[in-house]
Amino acid sequence: MNSYIEQNKDRFLEELFEILRIPSVSTDASFSADIKKTAEFVKAKLESAGAENVEVVDTPGNPIVYGEKMVGDDKPTVLVYGHYDVQPADPIELWESPPFEPEIRDGRIYARGACDDKGQMYMHVKALEVMSNEGEVPCNIKFMIEGEEEIGSNNLGWFVDNHRDRLDADIILISDTDMLGLDTPSICTGLRGLSYVEVELTGPSRDLHSGLYGGSVTNPINALCEMIESLRDESNRITIPGFYDDVEVVTEAERAKMGLAPNKDEQTKKELEIDELDGEEGYTSLERTSIRPTLDVNGIWGGYTQEGAKTVIPSKAYAKISMRLVPNQSSDAITELFTKHFESIAPKGIQVKVTPHHGGEPAVTPIDSKGFKAAELAMKDTLGKDPIPVRSGGSIPIVAMFKEKLGLDSVLFGFGLSIDAIHSPNESYGVQNFLKGIEAITRFHYHFSKA
Amino acid sequence: MNSYIEQNKDRFLEELFEILRIPSVSTDASFSADIKKTAEFVKAKLESAGAENVEVVDTPGNPIVYGEKMVGDDKPTVLVYGHYDVQPADPIELWESPPFEPEIRDGRIYARGACDDKGQMYMHVKALEVMSNEGEVPCNIKFMIEGEEEIGSNNLGWFVDNHRDRLDADIILISDTDMLGLDTPSICTGLRGLSYVEVELTGPSRDLHSGLYGGSVTNPINALCEMIESLRDESNRITIPGFYDDVEVVTEAERAKMGLAPNKDEQTKKELEIDELDGEEGYTSLERTSIRPTLDVNGIWGGYTQEGAKTVIPSKAYAKISMRLVPNQSSDAITELFTKHFESIAPKGIQVKVTPHHGGEPAVTPIDSKGFKAAELAMKDTLGKDPIPVRSGGSIPIVAMFKEKLGLDSVLFGFGLSIDAIHSPNESYGVQNFLKGIEAITRFHYHFSKA
Repeated sequence: MNSYIEQNKDRFLEELFEILRIPSVSTDASFSADIKKTAEFVKAKLESAGAENVEVVDTPGNPIVYGEKMVGDDKPTVLVYGHYDVQPADPIELWESPPFEPEIRDGRIYARGACDDKGQMYMHVKALEVMSNEGEVPCNIKFMIEGEEEIGSNNLGWFVDNHRDRLDADIILISDTDMLGLDTPSICTGLRGLSYVEVELTGPSRDLHSGLYGGSVTNPINALCEMIESLRDESNRITIPGFYDDVEVVTEAERAKMGLAPNKDEQTKKELEIDELDGEEGYTSLERTSIRPTLDVNGIWGGYTQEGAKTVIPSKAYAKISMRLVPNQSSDAITELFTKHFESIAPKGIQVKVTPHHGGEPAVTPIDSKGFKAAELAMKDTLGKDPIPVRSGGSIPIVAMFKEKLGLDSVLFGFGLSIDAIHSPNESYGVQNFLKGIEAITRFHYHFSKA
Repeated sequence: MNSYIEQNKDRFLEELFEILRIPSVSTDASFSADIKKTAEFVKAKLESAGAENVEVVDTPGNPIVYGEKMVGDDKPTVLVYGHYDVQPADPIELWESPPFEPEIRDGRIYARGACDDKGQMYMHVKALEVMSNEGEVPCNIKFMIEGEEEIGSNNLGWFVDNHRDRLDADIILISDTDMLGLDTPSICTGLRGLSYVEVELTGPSRDLHSGLYGGSVTNPINALCEMIESLRDESNRITIPGFYDDVEVVTEAERAKMGLAPNKDEQTKKELEIDELDGEEGYTSLERTSIRPTLDVNGIWGGYTQEGAKTVIPSKAYAKISMRLVPNQSSDAITELFTKHFESIAPKGIQVKVTPHHGGEPAVTPIDSKGFKAAELAMKDTLGKDPIPVRSGGSIPIVAMFKEKLGLDSVLFGFGLSIDAIHSPNESYGVQNFLKGIEAITRFHYHFSKA
């Protein structure tokens, strides 16, 4: 298998570059033509890799690409999930090379989506090509590649409901997470959920002169800062009543096992150029980002934000606030708790409007399933070491949805690294991670067919 | 005099519309051509009104228009100050008519600068024309019209120093404040000072994925909210150490006199569509906006602020913060206190940069000067009632500067109203205020020449 990948790696990379050049930003409607173009690209490549019945399926939102390679009813079936949409590129001025003009520097591919998730999704397309051309495809493989993951997979549930007949499988395979490193392989065993809201505060019905009214009217920006500040206490615990009620208490045993993972605090501080890390009292950084829920303001704006000075008390102030959730918190329930609480703490003279964006449920994947064992073996074959099971702080809401709607477990077979800067300027993905990932995926299908 | 104003009022208004159509926004460099155009317009109109030695004087910043009408060494001299620059128009979408396409609705002129200060400044130009054409100009009048008032009059001091010889006078006359109403005339006797800073918080050196890092790294937006919240306590007093040390304690007697002014709280709540007013404990709204200092966030921004949702922990967060000052606070001293304190409260993992914008000193004008008495008489002649002396919450930093550099008191002869919405969308100015203002100014010069 190595030989085929070795002989074709330049073409594999050139094809990845092609898809990375299409700005398929799902959160901004102005890119909808590029979304369609990207879906068509995935369809074409699946077909040339040997997939059959490949189709760009329309949904109420962005299309989903479906395809399959069936090799026999006696073989197990793997349903591969991935997404071809990407996060916005801004702030664009911070990119060292244009986000949609991929280039390789120091063995890394720099582009929006290089890792999340075009790079990782495309490994599966190329793995099929490898298996089709070398030896045989050991099990049935179905592909379901969506275009709304970065905005909450709003129509994936619709697709699953309406195409239930196509989706029978034994396991779901997803490469949309990271690992500790090619030299310390790991497999993600859990994901955090998400509750994401936008808040709008309205004070006076019009912008005011801060000299004539300053001191006598509640300023919505000051009010927003006070309300946000009050959402966490000194120990960085979230103060929303009931917020922690359903939080899964992780056993000391599991926390001890987590403690075995290499402590990356010093590396993180260096990499991010900060003097100190901080978070909820009583937990390590790894715990804070995996087994504990959090609240972060992702965006804030109000008043005069351009060049120079304007002495204004604005009528409105806004913020985008997200909470990462852990088992067994429910996204809807937390969104409701947040809304109720946030409205209740509005000061005099301020009206509050809370609008929920997308959410997602937390998930834990079993580490004793046939799929997980096949993933462990594939990792060891490819990277020479047994992978460590770790939880990820990110969210892939659809894992919980698949379990609920299809009754299927997922294997989170991710090859990203923390340095990939996904969702950030200068997102990148290691060329070796891409190529090793292709190899590991082919090995996964082999081991899973034997399991 | 009335007759001449009556006969020419349509032309007066049309001329005002002409200058209002030029977007002379001083805080945004892209309007510099319009700034020059506006200065030339003022020059031309001063000349046609009868002024001599009119000149557009270059400065290190925006030009200052100077002109004079000298009628005799035996006559007293009035130095008229005004400004032709305006605040930005944004948020433009909230204007009912375009900000730079003036129109009259219900007897009010709607445009950016209609009142602040093009409308009020132009009253002085027309008053000169009235006096030149009817009867005589009773005293020497000098005009000094600048283009940087909205950004801190940075070069007015330079002008005063370099053109000291031209500026001998007995009093300074300024129309850049408001009154209680045409039916309850008032004259402003005091102004607040200003300290205006921009703060930049830097957390991680790049934007981060809030799932992978959320909970383990200090988010600069959360930090900014916490720091801003801590700047005021529950009683809305500012917590910056030393902030109140120099605040002038207003006597109970003066506070009692202020209490005689009509209470506008209900009217304000209705006008601004808010259920409650709020401010520093123990003071009325009028006191909160005149004899007490305040702190307001005028603008805030950071992270993802566009359509949809982005799960990011930004590298940076920003705010523009201004403090209104009262006698005897010093703008520089307060800016220094703020900077020292704000840097000291930065949480773990956050770097703070504070950049001062323009500031200005508070000022109180004497109510026993010849100028003030002439203003009282002119108001009574024009509006039929004795004006009430009141302090304004706004800032005209140059009043203190004139006192210091020229040793001259100022008379704040303003005809705006609180409903004018200066610095806001739909700024307006009453047609009657404009016309009555012209008449009152001519009467002022008459009374001052006799004083």
